[in-house]
Amino acid sequence: MDSNANQQAYDRGHTIFSPDGRLYQVEYAREAVERGSPSVGVVTDDGVVLAARKRVRSPLLEADTVEKIHRVDDHLAIASAGHAADARQLVDVARREAQRHRLRYGEPIDAELLAKRLADHVQEHTQTGGSRPYGVALLVAGVDLDGADGPQLYEVDPSGTPYGWRAVAVGNGGRDVRQFLEDGIAAGESTRGDLEWGTATALEALAATSDEPELTPETVDVWTLETEGSETAASSPITQRTDDELASLLAELELD
Amino acid sequence: MDSNANQQAYDRGHTIFSPDGRLYQVEYAREAVERGSPSVGVVTDDGVVLAARKRVRSPLLEADTVEKIHRVDDHLAIASAGHAADARQLVDVARREAQRHRLRYGEPIDAELLAKRLADHVQEHTQTGGSRPYGVALLVAGVDLDGADGPQLYEVDPSGTPYGWRAVAVGNGGRDVRQFLEDGIAAGESTRGDLEWGTATALEALAATSDEPELTPETVDVWTLETEGSETAASSPITQRTDDELASLLAELELD
Amino acid sequence: MDSNANQQAYDRGHTIFSPDGRLYQVEYAREAVERGSPSVGVVTDDGVVLAARKRVRSPLLEADTVEKIHRVDDHLAIASAGHAADARQLVDVARREAQRHRLRYGEPIDAELLAKRLADHVQEHTQTGGSRPYGVALLVAGVDLDGADGPQLYEVDPSGTPYGWRAVAVGNGGRDVRQFLEDGIAAGESTRGDLEWGTATALEALAATSDEPELTPETVDVWTLETEGSETAASSPITQRTDDELASLLAELELD
Amino acid sequence: MDSNANQQAYDRGHTIFSPDGRLYQVEYAREAVERGSPSVGVVTDDGVVLAARKRVRSPLLEADTVEKIHRVDDHLAIASAGHAADARQLVDVARREAQRHRLRYGEPIDAELLAKRLADHVQEHTQTGGSRPYGVALLVAGVDLDGADGPQLYEVDPSGTPYGWRAVAVGNGGRDVRQFLEDGIAAGESTRGDLEWGTATALEALAATSDEPELTPETVDVWTLETEGSETAASSPITQRTDDELASLLAELELD
Amino acid sequence: MDSNANQQAYDRGHTIFSPDGRLYQVEYAREAVERGSPSVGVVTDDGVVLAARKRVRSPLLEADTVEKIHRVDDHLAIASAGHAADARQLVDVARREAQRHRLRYGEPIDAELLAKRLADHVQEHTQTGGSRPYGVALLVAGVDLDGADGPQLYEVDPSGTPYGWRAVAVGNGGRDVRQFLEDGIAAGESTRGDLEWGTATALEALAATSDEPELTPETVDVWTLETEGSETAASSPITQRTDDELASLLAELELD
Amino acid sequence: MDSNANQQAYDRGHTIFSPDGRLYQVEYAREAVERGSPSVGVVTDDGVVLAARKRVRSPLLEADTVEKIHRVDDHLAIASAGHAADARQLVDVARREAQRHRLRYGEPIDAELLAKRLADHVQEHTQTGGSRPYGVALLVAGVDLDGADGPQLYEVDPSGTPYGWRAVAVGNGGRDVRQFLEDGIAAGESTRGDLEWGTATALEALAATSDEPELTPETVDVWTLETEGSETAASSPITQRTDDELASLLAELELD
Amino acid sequence: MDSNANQQAYDRGHTIFSPDGRLYQVEYAREAVERGSPSVGVVTDDGVVLAARKRVRSPLLEADTVEKIHRVDDHLAIASAGHAADARQLVDVARREAQRHRLRYGEPIDAELLAKRLADHVQEHTQTGGSRPYGVALLVAGVDLDGADGPQLYEVDPSGTPYGWRAVAVGNGGRDVRQFLEDGIAAGESTRGDLEWGTATALEALAATSDEPELTPETVDVWTLETEGSETAASSPITQRTDDELASLLAELELD
Repeated sequence: MDSNANQQAYDRGHTIFSPDGRLYQVEYAREAVERGSPSVGVVTDDGVVLAARKRVRSPLLEADTVEKIHRVDDHLAIASAGHAADARQLVDVARREAQRHRLRYGEPIDAELLAKRLADHVQEHTQTGGSRPYGVALLVAGVDLDGADGPQLYEVDPSGTPYGWRAVAVGNGGRDVRQFLEDGIAAGESTRGDLEWGTATALEALAATSDEPELTPETVDVWTLETEGSETAASSPITQRTDDELASLLAELELD
Repeated sequence: MDSNANQQAYDRGHTIFSPDGRLYQVEYAREAVERGSPSVGVVTDDGVVLAARKRVRSPLLEADTVEKIHRVDDHLAIASAGHAADARQLVDVARREAQRHRLRYGEPIDAELLAKRLADHVQEHTQTGGSRPYGVALLVAGVDLDGADGPQLYEVDPSGTPYGWRAVAVGNGGRDVRQFLEDGIAAGESTRGDLEWGTATALEALAATSDEPELTPETVDVWTLETEGSETAASSPITQRTDDELASLLAELELD
Repeated sequence: MDSNANQQAYDRGHTIFSPDGRLYQVEYAREAVERGSPSVGVVTDDGVVLAARKRVRSPLLEADTVEKIHRVDDHLAIASAGHAADARQLVDVARREAQRHRLRYGEPIDAELLAKRLADHVQEHTQTGGSRPYGVALLVAGVDLDGADGPQLYEVDPSGTPYGWRAVAVGNGGRDVRQFLEDGIAAGESTRGDLEWGTATALEALAATSDEPELTPETVDVWTLETEGSETAASSPITQRTDDELASLLAELELD
Repeated sequence: MDSNANQQAYDRGHTIFSPDGRLYQVEYAREAVERGSPSVGVVTDDGVVLAARKRVRSPLLEADTVEKIHRVDDHLAIASAGHAADARQLVDVARREAQRHRLRYGEPIDAELLAKRLADHVQEHTQTGGSRPYGVALLVAGVDLDGADGPQLYEVDPSGTPYGWRAVAVGNGGRDVRQFLEDGIAAGESTRGDLEWGTATALEALAATSDEPELTPETVDVWTLETEGSETAASSPITQRTDDELASLLAELELD
Repeated sequence: MDSNANQQAYDRGHTIFSPDGRLYQVEYAREAVERGSPSVGVVTDDGVVLAARKRVRSPLLEADTVEKIHRVDDHLAIASAGHAADARQLVDVARREAQRHRLRYGEPIDAELLAKRLADHVQEHTQTGGSRPYGVALLVAGVDLDGADGPQLYEVDPSGTPYGWRAVAVGNGGRDVRQFLEDGIAAGESTRGDLEWGTATALEALAATSDEPELTPETVDVWTLETEGSETAASSPITQRTDDELASLLAELELD
Repeated sequence: MDSNANQQAYDRGHTIFSPDGRLYQVEYAREAVERGSPSVGVVTDDGVVLAARKRVRSPLLEADTVEKIHRVDDHLAIASAGHAADARQLVDVARREAQRHRLRYGEPIDAELLAKRLADHVQEHTQTGGSRPYGVALLVAGVDLDGADGPQLYEVDPSGTPYGWRAVAVGNGGRDVRQFLEDGIAAGESTRGDLEWGTATALEALAATSDEPELTPETVDVWTLETEGSETAASSPITQRTDDELASLLAELELD
Repeated sequence: MDSNANQQAYDRGHTIFSPDGRLYQVEYAREAVERGSPSVGVVTDDGVVLAARKRVRSPLLEADTVEKIHRVDDHLAIASAGHAADARQLVDVARREAQRHRLRYGEPIDAELLAKRLADHVQEHTQTGGSRPYGVALLVAGVDLDGADGPQLYEVDPSGTPYGWRAVAVGNGGRDVRQFLEDGIAAGESTRGDLEWGTATALEALAATSDEPELTPETVDVWTLETEGSETAASSPITQRTDDELASLLAELELD
């Protein structure tokens, strides 16, 4: 029996372990993430930047209906990579969870707790029968409405584990993007800057994937979540960059 | 093990991922869409046009009972391609959703929200056991009753993802029709015109499929959804073209 | 892997698609319809005629207990072809639906709405697990009790799609019968006549199947549903032809 | 792939169709009927005769506990052939149905309606998952308590279809017995006689099976259901022949 | 495909028929009965005798905790052969049924009705999914508390069919024991005697199995159920023979 | 098809019989018992002794947390062999059953009744789908609190059958231990002695297994359940031997 | 049939036994534990030390969001090794159990009882269908809030068995770490010291795994649970070592 057939013996039912202790269906769900267009998150001094590539397969497609970044609450947004329909379901779960938290406790949920709740929900789909895992990874970004805790960025992967990041990428070419981010940021903490810096970094990271087309205002989406009280604070923490702003930025960064 | 057998290992249960992260049952449901007679949607300055080919397999069949376009609310219609019985079920879901929205919020649901609700419903049939995916794609068209938001056209595909379009085709020969639309419309935004222009474009697009028969008033269905307040506004936003009108149009366009 | 084995990979579970987007179990259910003795429906100027062959496998069988045509309401009848036990179940569903409609709305259900309700029920058995599809096709015939809408004839097939017909046949030899009907009727709308004409046409159509025995009063069942207000209107819209009437008719038409 | 293996692909799950539209599990259930000792029913001018062979596999077996004919109500009895335990379950269903009808409508259920109810119950076991079909055929016999409708004899087969008969046999050698009945009865309606005639006919028919042993009072059971008001009417419509009566009859008919 | 593989195609799911109409799982459950130590029942003029071999696999085993015969009510006992744990479950069902009957009707249940109730319960485990059949056969013995109906002895087999017997054996070597009983009893009704005669007959029958060890007071259990009003009636209808009594009996019968 | 493959056809689903009437999953569960460290029970004149080997796989393991003997009530204890986690579940069932009995009847449950309740619970896991059998055998020991019934020792095996024993062993090397016990005890009833005798016998029996290491106070557990009213009666019926006592005993018996 | 294929016959369904009485899915879940980064627990005179390696796969990952040790209550913490998402679920179960205990009994749950409750929960996932086992091992550490019972350390493994330990390691290289601990501690009870000693021992043990990278403050987590009343008692029993403290410790122990 060759190793391929051996693997197949354990990868068709998502609720069983292989002899070496792996859950193949979860690993295949990670492949679904790798097939998706990439999303990036960067934590800055005054907030979080989420940026994502969008695959606009036709000039007739209304590009802004390809939703890669979703508003969850006044101070919370989620970017995703992988199976788009699964992402939408998890964002719905996130919104209901955020509403429930406000109703029960009279205050907004923070990104860490929301990421953990989503991770619990995702894990259940890897253990209990009757459903496949979610084929999507989420980047949960949040700022504290009263400016106390600072900006937060969490990843929820298809196994149902939450991780906190200073900067992270998921989706197609994620490995390249992560490398770019590590090279540029992790070298020195001191390089961390403001939202402008974060936006530039996120776009440059997205441009670093070798097998995706050039960036255009239509095929990229950039959102910023700004900590309240920061110098340039807008009336609402969440701002989506307009096509014009994106065009200027891409030109400025020589990414277009 | 050859690649065919390899694929078969993962395509018989709709709730599992293949090693490369694909959901074969959803892809096969897309094939069911490709087998169906095509439907087209075109957004114009004053509304949306939905047009569909009907397969009238016998001269004794009452052609108007082959429903390819369905009224959902005063201002909402859905065209479909694929497994006809599945389409009927989803249209029922759409009508109940529209009613529920009116009851709960005292105002009509718009096409975007309805498309998202339908997409959620469709996605659940791709993840939870006990049911196959829907073998149908929908074109959800709507106009705003108070003329505020303008005409909307959404596609809901078998994976449960909603997309907004300026013009789109689903079903047999969809690739040809989409190409025709892109060539004719996407070249310049300025070509977008009124409902007359949209109707002509939709019919010409349907005629562009090489492996379907000639268009006749009996084998084509054309509906317009007109924005309230537009110059030629009828008493009701939705109008279905009569056989006579269709015959004139086809003659005029030299498509008969 | 040969194509036969390929097909078998997808035809044993009724809730999955084949790679080319087909639902084999639904197609096999259509074969169950083709195995059944044929039924015919013809719309006339004053009503609908339903006629069906009965397989009386022994001279001791009480021929009138072989039910091919079923009364559903004062103005509604259903003929069937295929798995007889499945037909009985669907007729029960139809009767309950008709009663419910009368109770809820204070008026009888019409044939179109009833056919759609039945189609929805049939579709669910092709998508949800735990049940096979229905192996039967129905001809739903109805006349309007107040004479407003005219006679209606609908087919509900095993996929759960309703079709309206001017004349139609289902079951063994259906192809031959449909051809006969198209040749005789579709040529010119003007040939449509009264119930007498419809009855003759239905019987001649049933006789046109090459692999069924000669027609006899015992092996054929003919019902007429007459529009109220028509010249020859009986006290009740539904009339079943007696054996004597059938014998005369068959002799007259030289079909015996 | 040979045809045997082909068949096996579709006959192990009772809820699926084979490519030619057959339900193999239902056909195999019919084989279970063919394996059972035969039962016969004969309609006469004054009632119905039910007769059945009993397999008394040991002289120590209390022959009258081998129940092949069951009393369901004052005027209703059921004979069976096939899987004995399944027959007992269906007879329980029949008794509850008869009681329910009396409670709800204040009058006894007739054989036709009861046979249809049982057929519906049997059909459900051929379509819905989680259960095999019933491996039994029933002969439902009834007389009208007020003498209005005359004697009735219905067969319910494993597919869940009810048939009315003037005389019928089910079980091992049923083909031979049916042939005997057709030869003797169907030749001329005029030969139909009284219960005496029916009893003789039923016993002669049972004796006509070539691969069953000689008839003895211990291995045959004969019940008569007599129409009320008939000349020889007993105090109760149902009479079971005693061993002595059976011995006389068998001697008289030279069947012992 | 050889016949062995053919059989295997149908014997692994207990809810399906084989092509020749057999239920293999029920037949295999009968094999479980054949593997069990045998039990015997004998009807006498004044009651019923139940006798059973016990497999005492160690001299340290408390022989009286190997329960082969169970008291169900004052006048009812059940002997069993086959899967011991299954027997215990069915005896629990029997006791609850007997209690329920007393509560509902204010009088004890008789052996025939109890056997039928148990048979119904057993049958359900051969038709409905989610459970295997019971691997046990029961001998239900009862006497009428008011002496009206006489002693009764019923067998309930793994298919769920009840049979009444004058004398019967189930379990290992049952064929030999039944032959012994038929030779000794069935020859002439006149040989039927009192409980003493029945006890001797039962023990001699148990001794007639060739592949079981010699009988000893420790490896045999004998119970008598005596009709009330009979000459030697004890204070309670049920009596279990003591080891001393059994030793005397075995010596007397020269079976030790 | 070789016999190994033949066996495999029936041993993977625990709810089906093999052609020779065996339940392989139950037999495999017995193998799980054979893999467990052994437990012994001995009935004496004044009570019951339970002794068990413990596998202490590291000197850092807290030996007393390896629970082989469990207190269930003041007068009831259970020793086990096999899958440890399964044993814990069954002991929980036992404790709840003992509590329920006290609440309902105001008196403690005795060992026999408790063993039967546990056996019923275990049997259900061998018949109903959705669960594997328990991989554990239990020794249920009890003394009567009021000294009436004497000491009791029951085994509950994975099939769900309860057996009473004067002395018994389960688990690895059980065959050797049982042989030792039979040789030492069964030879003459007169050798049965007091709890001291029973403790020595139990330890010597445990030492008789050839493939287990030498006994030490850390790797053996000994509990006594003393009949109330016996000469040396402690304040509580149940006593666990201390490490010091065990060291003395092992030295005395020359087993260390 | 080779042994590999033989094993595969029993390891794909988690609810069945193999012929030698093993539960392969549970054994594979243990492999998932072995794949996880290791955790260590050490009991000291004044409390318990939990230490764990963390895999920080990128310098951008917020190391403190990789949770290997979880606070469950004021006096209870759990370290884990294996599938991280499963660990989070079990910690949630633990927290709910601790809350429930406080609510019901007005006092905190102790580590032993909590470990047993968790073990019961884990066992159920190895027996009942519809779920795979948990791929994680837990170290449950607790101190008594009132200083009565002393520090406790329990392991819960994937089979659902709880073990008490003086020192233990789970996860990758666990064998090496356990050996280190046995060599250092088990040699003489007298070496057991205070929390300082325990912390040093735990870190040295973690460093003893040959195939993990060097320890750094970022890749190791150390928590102490201090018995109330002990000399150095902090205000709260649980203390997490800061990065600075860890850096000093690693330098001091020459492990960096």
